[in-house]
Amino acid sequence: MNNGKNNTQGMLPEPTLRRLPWYLAYVSLLHRQRVQYVSSTQISKELNVDASQIAKDLSFLNIRGKTRIGYDVPTLVSTLNDFLGFGQMHRAVVIGCGSLGGALMQDVGLAQYGLQIVAGFDVNPQLVGHDICGTPVYHIDDMPGQMRQCQATIAIVTVPVEAAQKAADAAIACGVDAIWNFTPSRIKVPEHIITANTSIYAHLAIIYNRINNK
Amino acid sequence: MNNGKNNTQGMLPEPTLRRLPWYLAYVSLLHRQRVQYVSSTQISKELNVDASQIAKDLSFLNIRGKTRIGYDVPTLVSTLNDFLGFGQMHRAVVIGCGSLGGALMQDVGLAQYGLQIVAGFDVNPQLVGHDICGTPVYHIDDMPGQMRQCQATIAIVTVPVEAAQKAADAAIACGVDAIWNFTPSRIKVPEHIITANTSIYAHLAIIYNRINNK
Repeated sequence: MNNGKNNTQGMLPEPTLRRLPWYLAYVSLLHRQRVQYVSSTQISKELNVDASQIAKDLSFLNIRGKTRIGYDVPTLVSTLNDFLGFGQMHRAVVIGCGSLGGALMQDVGLAQYGLQIVAGFDVNPQLVGHDICGTPVYHIDDMPGQMRQCQATIAIVTVPVEAAQKAADAAIACGVDAIWNFTPSRIKVPEHIITANTSIYAHLAIIYNRINNK
Repeated sequence: MNNGKNNTQGMLPEPTLRRLPWYLAYVSLLHRQRVQYVSSTQISKELNVDASQIAKDLSFLNIRGKTRIGYDVPTLVSTLNDFLGFGQMHRAVVIGCGSLGGALMQDVGLAQYGLQIVAGFDVNPQLVGHDICGTPVYHIDDMPGQMRQCQATIAIVTVPVEAAQKAADAAIACGVDAIWNFTPSRIKVPEHIITANTSIYAHLAIIYNRINNK
């Protein structure tokens, strides 16, 4: 593991990784407007991130601006896109194809960010055996066999809270590398498994609390 | 603004607010299993949060455990639920009813967490004038008039990156209190406006990076 400046494939600090998609979103916009160069000061003003922080974040990817000219926009777009992995496809399954899980299976936008949902799993007989936007839904008990076929590396967990840990355990037993947890529950995983928590409910709690205190 | 221990309506620190939904998810589960008491040590073990941190977080809500018995589960459930605002309805609109926005409008689970989506806005003629799961979709130019009708306090922004700032500005001009940003873009808002960023793409970037470095 090396967080050094010259390691383009390295394990980046999470705060940097969180900012890179902001830079990509903004420079992609500039790219569509045919802008050729952008300075860290300009990015800083737009995104409200310190200019020196931006320069540091980009140096992790070996991207350096030219004095008084700034960064080359097309290079920035392609380097960020490649680095973030949005250009290659990552196979995922959805466990829990109810309202949120089903919604994610219908979200074609995820494919633009390199996520291909290849199968869903559920226990509801109204869903099992059918498909959602062309993606088949299997019974959760059939996971071992189906997972061998679909070779997914990511399991998206959108089951009810009480089923979250069991769903993640089953996916891990089938060999996934990462658990993307959308439930309000905390999921325990072995050390070699990657987890990301998208805390929709935590964000709602923050919004409500701030509104009530206005 | 008071973050003091005895202020149950106070402005809580964001890390505490993020943890409260985890506690609620876990104790709701215990409640359904008819468990009467739970200790902070038990919650700590389950959620991997320090027991003293849990006690501190709960003391913000004036919840205190009994020595050697622990916290009363039904009280914990109702106090957390009330405090987090999941029990009352908050009216929201979705701006951008494409794949992700449309998906959120179909997600009935959000209503269980106090979020009622009352209208959608878009520019796509195939969506405008129709409804998604019973919720009407209006043209984005009709926002001022429609927003007066629907009295939403939260605008959920799910438009493409290049339209994100404009969408948020329009909603703020219509008087919403909070912007919930699902785009990979950063949105600038006046100081009195609440924002929450649900960075789906940042989470994907983290997962991909960690997988590539395994």
